[in-house]
Amino acid sequence: MRIHLINPNTTASMTEKAAAAARMVASPGTQIVAVTSSMGPASIEGFYDDALALPGLLAAIAAAEQGTGKQGVGGIGGPVDAHIIACFDDTGLDAARTLARAPVVGIGEAGFHLASLIAHRFAVVTTLARSVPVIEANLARYGLLARCCAIRASDVAVLELEDPASDARGRISDEIGRAIRADKAEAIVLGCAGMADLARSLSVQHGVPVIDGVASAVTLAEGLVRTGLATSKLGPYAAPRVKPYAGRLADFAPRGD
Amino acid sequence: MRIHLINPNTTASMTEKAAAAARMVASPGTQIVAVTSSMGPASIEGFYDDALALPGLLAAIAAAEQGTGKQGVGGIGGPVDAHIIACFDDTGLDAARTLARAPVVGIGEAGFHLASLIAHRFAVVTTLARSVPVIEANLARYGLLARCCAIRASDVAVLELEDPASDARGRISDEIGRAIRADKAEAIVLGCAGMADLARSLSVQHGVPVIDGVASAVTLAEGLVRTGLATSKLGPYAAPRVKPYAGRLADFAPRGD
Amino acid sequence: MRIHLINPNTTASMTEKAAAAARMVASPGTQIVAVTSSMGPASIEGFYDDALALPGLLAAIAAAEQGTGKQGVGGIGGPVDAHIIACFDDTGLDAARTLARAPVVGIGEAGFHLASLIAHRFAVVTTLARSVPVIEANLARYGLLARCCAIRASDVAVLELEDPASDARGRISDEIGRAIRADKAEAIVLGCAGMADLARSLSVQHGVPVIDGVASAVTLAEGLVRTGLATSKLGPYAAPRVKPYAGRLADFAPRGD
Amino acid sequence: MRIHLINPNTTASMTEKAAAAARMVASPGTQIVAVTSSMGPASIEGFYDDALALPGLLAAIAAAEQGTGKQGVGGIGGPVDAHIIACFDDTGLDAARTLARAPVVGIGEAGFHLASLIAHRFAVVTTLARSVPVIEANLARYGLLARCCAIRASDVAVLELEDPASDARGRISDEIGRAIRADKAEAIVLGCAGMADLARSLSVQHGVPVIDGVASAVTLAEGLVRTGLATSKLGPYAAPRVKPYAGRLADFAPRGD
Amino acid sequence: MRIHLINPNTTASMTEKAAAAARMVASPGTQIVAVTSSMGPASIEGFYDDALALPGLLAAIAAAEQGTGKQGVGGIGGPVDAHIIACFDDTGLDAARTLARAPVVGIGEAGFHLASLIAHRFAVVTTLARSVPVIEANLARYGLLARCCAIRASDVAVLELEDPASDARGRISDEIGRAIRADKAEAIVLGCAGMADLARSLSVQHGVPVIDGVASAVTLAEGLVRTGLATSKLGPYAAPRVKPYAGRLADFAPRGD
Amino acid sequence: MRIHLINPNTTASMTEKAAAAARMVASPGTQIVAVTSSMGPASIEGFYDDALALPGLLAAIAAAEQGTGKQGVGGIGGPVDAHIIACFDDTGLDAARTLARAPVVGIGEAGFHLASLIAHRFAVVTTLARSVPVIEANLARYGLLARCCAIRASDVAVLELEDPASDARGRISDEIGRAIRADKAEAIVLGCAGMADLARSLSVQHGVPVIDGVASAVTLAEGLVRTGLATSKLGPYAAPRVKPYAGRLADFAPRGD
Repeated sequence: MRIHLINPNTTASMTEKAAAAARMVASPGTQIVAVTSSMGPASIEGFYDDALALPGLLAAIAAAEQGTGKQGVGGIGGPVDAHIIACFDDTGLDAARTLARAPVVGIGEAGFHLASLIAHRFAVVTTLARSVPVIEANLARYGLLARCCAIRASDVAVLELEDPASDARGRISDEIGRAIRADKAEAIVLGCAGMADLARSLSVQHGVPVIDGVASAVTLAEGLVRTGLATSKLGPYAAPRVKPYAGRLADFAPRGD
Repeated sequence: MRIHLINPNTTASMTEKAAAAARMVASPGTQIVAVTSSMGPASIEGFYDDALALPGLLAAIAAAEQGTGKQGVGGIGGPVDAHIIACFDDTGLDAARTLARAPVVGIGEAGFHLASLIAHRFAVVTTLARSVPVIEANLARYGLLARCCAIRASDVAVLELEDPASDARGRISDEIGRAIRADKAEAIVLGCAGMADLARSLSVQHGVPVIDGVASAVTLAEGLVRTGLATSKLGPYAAPRVKPYAGRLADFAPRGD
Repeated sequence: MRIHLINPNTTASMTEKAAAAARMVASPGTQIVAVTSSMGPASIEGFYDDALALPGLLAAIAAAEQGTGKQGVGGIGGPVDAHIIACFDDTGLDAARTLARAPVVGIGEAGFHLASLIAHRFAVVTTLARSVPVIEANLARYGLLARCCAIRASDVAVLELEDPASDARGRISDEIGRAIRADKAEAIVLGCAGMADLARSLSVQHGVPVIDGVASAVTLAEGLVRTGLATSKLGPYAAPRVKPYAGRLADFAPRGD
Repeated sequence: MRIHLINPNTTASMTEKAAAAARMVASPGTQIVAVTSSMGPASIEGFYDDALALPGLLAAIAAAEQGTGKQGVGGIGGPVDAHIIACFDDTGLDAARTLARAPVVGIGEAGFHLASLIAHRFAVVTTLARSVPVIEANLARYGLLARCCAIRASDVAVLELEDPASDARGRISDEIGRAIRADKAEAIVLGCAGMADLARSLSVQHGVPVIDGVASAVTLAEGLVRTGLATSKLGPYAAPRVKPYAGRLADFAPRGD
Repeated sequence: MRIHLINPNTTASMTEKAAAAARMVASPGTQIVAVTSSMGPASIEGFYDDALALPGLLAAIAAAEQGTGKQGVGGIGGPVDAHIIACFDDTGLDAARTLARAPVVGIGEAGFHLASLIAHRFAVVTTLARSVPVIEANLARYGLLARCCAIRASDVAVLELEDPASDARGRISDEIGRAIRADKAEAIVLGCAGMADLARSLSVQHGVPVIDGVASAVTLAEGLVRTGLATSKLGPYAAPRVKPYAGRLADFAPRGD
Repeated sequence: MRIHLINPNTTASMTEKAAAAARMVASPGTQIVAVTSSMGPASIEGFYDDALALPGLLAAIAAAEQGTGKQGVGGIGGPVDAHIIACFDDTGLDAARTLARAPVVGIGEAGFHLASLIAHRFAVVTTLARSVPVIEANLARYGLLARCCAIRASDVAVLELEDPASDARGRISDEIGRAIRADKAEAIVLGCAGMADLARSLSVQHGVPVIDGVASAVTLAEGLVRTGLATSKLGPYAAPRVKPYAGRLADFAPRGD
C-alpha cells in the first residue's frame, strides 16, 4: 500500500518530521510517499495562509493521482492508494476529495476521530490563537465539537517547532497540564503536524493519552484502503466540472477523464 | 462612499450583471467599483472551484486596499470604503477579512441576514446540487441554519444564467413555487450572483419577498461604513503574519505594513 | 424615506437620545420620526416590563402605519417606510411585524446582525442581570447565540443612564474590558438604547468595534427600504385575524382592511 | 389546595371547558378557581393576540395572589396555591412568574413535560398554522423541541371549537392519524385549551396516548405544591422592579411589597 | 393508587430513605410499595455499576407488573399503577418502559422536569465525578441540557450518605453555594436518591428551591395515573420480542402475553 | 496483535459471520479471537435485549483481559490488545471501557467514523424500527448525528439474517435504494453485525460505498494499537470502584487490581 502524505506548507523539514511520524506507525508493507507543497506559505497560521495553501495542495493531489508527483527524479513512482493532508487545519480537505479517486484523510479529523474512541472528552492544544476558530469550525462541521472540552493555544508559532532551541515543548506541556486540570480533558490531541515528535513523551509526562494526527491519519488511511472504501462520488465530492480557468491558475482547469 | 465589488470568478458578464444590481440600490453618493478576478475558474460550482478562486479574490482585495485594482487604465482610483464578495458561496470571506482594513461583506451572508429581518423562515434557491453543502455549511457557521427551511437546487449551471436562450428562469421559478408550498418558505434568497436580475420579477410572480444577495450586500456595506464599523482585528481576522511564500504564489506573501 | 423610531418605554429623554443617535447615521433624505410610547413602564427591565410595554408599542405602530402617530400637533405626518423598535429586548417585534406593512427592525437584532459581519465572536454588555435571559433567548431565536461569547450585565439600571451624575459609563467600560480579556470578545454590542451616545468613545477607549443597536437598525431599515423588502405575510406575520377584543383593550381589536 | 386557572382570552365558555377538564383530574381536596381574563382578545391566534392578552392575564395573576380575583361576588376567596395559564401558547408565563409567589404552570409546557415521560417522540396537533411558530419557539425555549416529531395545524380556528356544529373534531382526528403514520408520533399533545374535552375519545379512537395540557397542568401544579416548590426568585423571575407606569396601564406599576 | 418504588441498588437502607421521602409527599390514598433490587451493586457509581444494576431492576419491574414482587411474605400484593426508578441515573428507564404496562418515572428526569417549571436555569449537585457524564447524557437525551447550568460533583460516595458520621451534607452544601454564586443556579436538583432527606434543610439554608427527585417522581407518577396516561407502545417502548435467552439470564426471556 | 471480538448476543452463527468479516480485513499478523456471549438474548432488538446483554458482554471482556476467555479448551490464550463489541447498538461500550485496559471499539461507532471520512452525509440501514432510536441516540452521543441523513429500518429481524431462505437481502437493498434517492445518502452504513457478509455485493449493486461496522472496527482497533492509544482512565472510564455486589450477580463485583 502506498500512502501519499502531502505537507501543504512549503517547509521541507516539517514534511520530514511528519513522514517520520507516519512511518513509525505504518504497517509492514505500507510505503509513505511524502511530498512538500511547491507553492504558497512556509507555515499555515490562520485564514489567509489556509487560502493560499490550496493551489499547492491540489496540485500535489492531482500529480499523485497520476503517479507523477514531485518526490525524487522519477516522480513518486505510480498512483497512490490514499492521501493524507498533513496540516492540522485539514486545509483543502473537501476540494481534495473532489479531485481524488483515492480516499483523503486530514490529520485534524484523524486525531479527533481516534480521540473520540478512547475518551469521553478531549482537548486540542495547538499553536497560535488565530488557529483556534479554524479548528473549532472544523470540529463543528465534522460533528465532534461536543466531544472537545477545550481548544487551547500554546502561543507557539509553527516554525518555532522546527527550532530545537525554542521552549515550544515547555509551553505546549503547560497547556496540556491546564487542559487536564481546568477543562477535565481525558485525552489531548496535538494541534499541529509539527508536534508529531512530541506525542509520546508528553503522554508519559502527563499520564494521559496524547494523540498525534499524523499517526492517526496513517492508521485511518490504511483502514479505508483495507476495507475497500473511497470517497463517495454521489454528492458534493463528485469530480470537478470541466470548465475554463483563467490567468495564472489556468492549468488548474478540470479536464474530466 | 466607494464600494469595491469583486466577482471571484473570471466571467466578466457576471461582474457586469452584479454591478448593475448593486448600482440600482446604492445610495446617492455611493460609487460601485466592480472588478473581475484575474485568475481561476470561469464559474464557482463546488469545493474545487471555490478553492481555486481564492488567489484571484485575495489579489483583488489587496489591490483595492491600495487603490491599485484592475478597473480601467488608472486602476480603481484610490482606496475603497468596503468590499463585497459577489459569489453566493461567500468564497474567501474569512481570508479577505484578515487582509482588509475596510469591512468585507459576502452576498450569501447579506441575503441571509436581510431575509432574517423579514421572514421567520426563508428558503434558498441555488444553481447545482453540489453547491448545497457549501451554502448549508455557511448557514451553520453564521448561525442562521435554523432560519432556513430548505436549500433547493434548480439544476441550472452558473453559466446558463448568462445565456438568454436558456430556460434557467423557469426552473428557478419552479423551485420557488415548491419552496413556498412544500417547505412553507416565507421568503426566498436567490443563491447565485448571476440571478440578481431576476429577483424583482420573481417576487411579483410569486407574491413573496425574493432577496438578491448583491443588493443586500450593498446596503449592509453602506450601513457598516455609515456606522463607522470595520472588521475587528482582535481575533482571527488580525492581519496575516509576515512570512515567506514559495513558488508561483510567492508574491502573495504578507509584508506587514 | 421616513423611519418611525418608537421607544416602547415612556421616558421621553431616552427617545430623544435614541433619535439623536439615529439621525447621526441616517442617509441624507432619511427622516427619523421618533415617538415615545403613551402607556406602560418608564423603563423595560425584565419580563414583566416587557409584557406591559406591548400595548403602547403596538398602538404606536398602528398609528404610524396610518400616519396618525402622536408626534407634534398634526401627528407624524403620513405613513412611514419602516419601523424601528428602540428597546434592546426587541420588545414586541413579532407582534409588530404582524401589524405593519412596512418592515420592522429591532435594535437588538440589528446590533447582532451587524456585529456578525465584523467579528467572529461578539459580546453584549447590558444593564441589569435580569435582562440577560431575555437577550439570550432572542439570540437563540434569531440563530445568533453561537456568535455571542458572553452577555454581561453592568448592574446599571436603565434610568441611571439618563442621569449624568451616575458612574454608569465607568461600569459599562469595566465590563467591556472584561469581555475582551476573559471572553475573547472581538466586538461589543451595547445592550440598551440608552447607551447609544457612548458607543464611539468606548470604541476609541478599548480599541474594539462598539456597536450601538439604534444606529445599526437605521442602516438596516434603510437597506430594507432601498431593496424593496418588507415583512413576508405568508407565514406567522400575516395580519392579525379580525375578532372582538374585550374590556380596557377593546380598541386594539384587529379590524382588517 | 386552591389552584387558580386563568383563561387569558376573554371567552367564558372556554374557561368553563378548561375548568371542567381540570376538575376531572384534580385530587380530592383540590379546588379549581377558574377565571376569565377581563380584557383583550376573544381567542389567541398568533403573535398579536398573544401580546394583547398579557395585561388581562397579569391583572388576573395579581388579583389572585391577593385573593381578590373576579370569580363570583366576593372575589376568588383568598390567596391561591398555584396558577395555571390555560392557553397552549403559555402566554405570559415568564411575566407571570415574576409576579407570583405561587408556582405558575402553562398548559403547553405541562403537556410537553408529561408527553416526555410516556413517549420517545410526540406530536402536537394545534389549531391554525400561525400558532405553529409560537409553539415551536416555546418547545425550543423549554429544551423539548427534539422530543417533538411534528407540530401539525388542523386549520380549526379556536372559536370553532366552541361550536358544536363544526367539524373541528374530525379535522383534528385526521391530523392525529397523519402524525402517527407520517411522523411516527407515539403520543399526541392537543395544542389548544379548547380541545380539552376531546382527549379521551381521540385516544380511544387512535389507540395512542392523547394528552390534554389542562389536565397535565393540574397534576404538575399539585405536584409542585405538594413538594413545596415555587418559582425561584434568584434569577429572571425576581419580582418586578418598582417604577412608574404611564397612561392607560399606569395601575400595572409594580409597587413592591 | 399503588406506586412501586424500586431501588436498583442492593442497599436496603437507601430504599427506606427513598420510601420515606416518597411517603412524605404522596397524596392521601397513594400507597408506596418500596422494593430493593435482589442482585447487583450495593451502590451505582458510573457506567459499570449502571450496567449490572439492570437485571435486578428489570426483575423487580416484571414482578411488580404481576403483583408478585419481593416485599413482605405475600409479595407486593397485586399489580401496581406506576413504577419509580429510585436511582438518579435513571438506570434502565428505557428497558423498564418496554416491560411495563404501567407508566415508569425516573427520579433524575422527575427532578429535571419539575426544576424546569420553577427556574430558568438549575444546577445538579451529585456524588462522584464519574456520575457527571451519565447525568449529562441523560439531560441531553431528555432535551433539558440547556436548562442546566452546571452538574457539580460533591466528591461524596453514595454509601457515605448512609453514614451519619460523614461530612457529606457539608460538602453537598458547599457545592450548592458554589452553584448559586459561580453558575448563577436558580434552583438545585439533588443528584442522588440518598440525598432525599437533605432537600428541605438545604433549601432553607441557601434560600433557593432544592429539588429531590424521589418526591418529584411521586407527584409525576400520580399525575400520569390521574390523567390516565401510560407509556406509548407504538414506538421503541413496544413490548420486548419473544425470543430465547441463554445461560444464567435464561429466565429473563420475554414470553409475550 | 490479538483482537478480541465479542458477540454480545448468544447466537454462535452470528459470531462466526462477524469473525469471518473481521479476518477478511485484518492485517497480516492480527489474530481475531471471536467469542459468543455466554448469557442473555439470542439477538439484540431494542432496549430490553440491550439491557440483558450487558452481563454476558462484561463477563467476556473481563475474561479476555485476563486471557481466560471461553474460546476453545485452553481459553483464548492470553491477554488481548483490543476489544470489539460486535453489535451495532454498541451495547455496553461505556461499561466495557471502564473494565478494560485495552481499547474497546463498537462496530456502530466504527462504521459511523469511517463513513464520516468518505461521505458528507451517510445513511444507516438497520433491522427493525425499534432499533432506530437506539442508533439515533448513539449518533447523538458520539456527535455524528448531523452527518447521518437517515436511519432506515428494513423490517428484517436479526435472526432472519441467519436464514439463507429469507428475502432479507432484498429488503435491505430496497432501503439502500430509497436512502440514495430520497435522503441523498452518499454512503450506507449497514446497521447490524449480521449484515457483514452483504456489504461488498450491495456496494457493487448500488454504486455507492457500503460500510460494514465489523470490518471498520477491526481497522480502528488495529489503528489504536499501532499508535499506542488506549482508553483514558482520567474520566468516566476509570476502573469500577470496589464494592459488594449481591445475589445472582455477586461475582461481577469489581475487585480492584
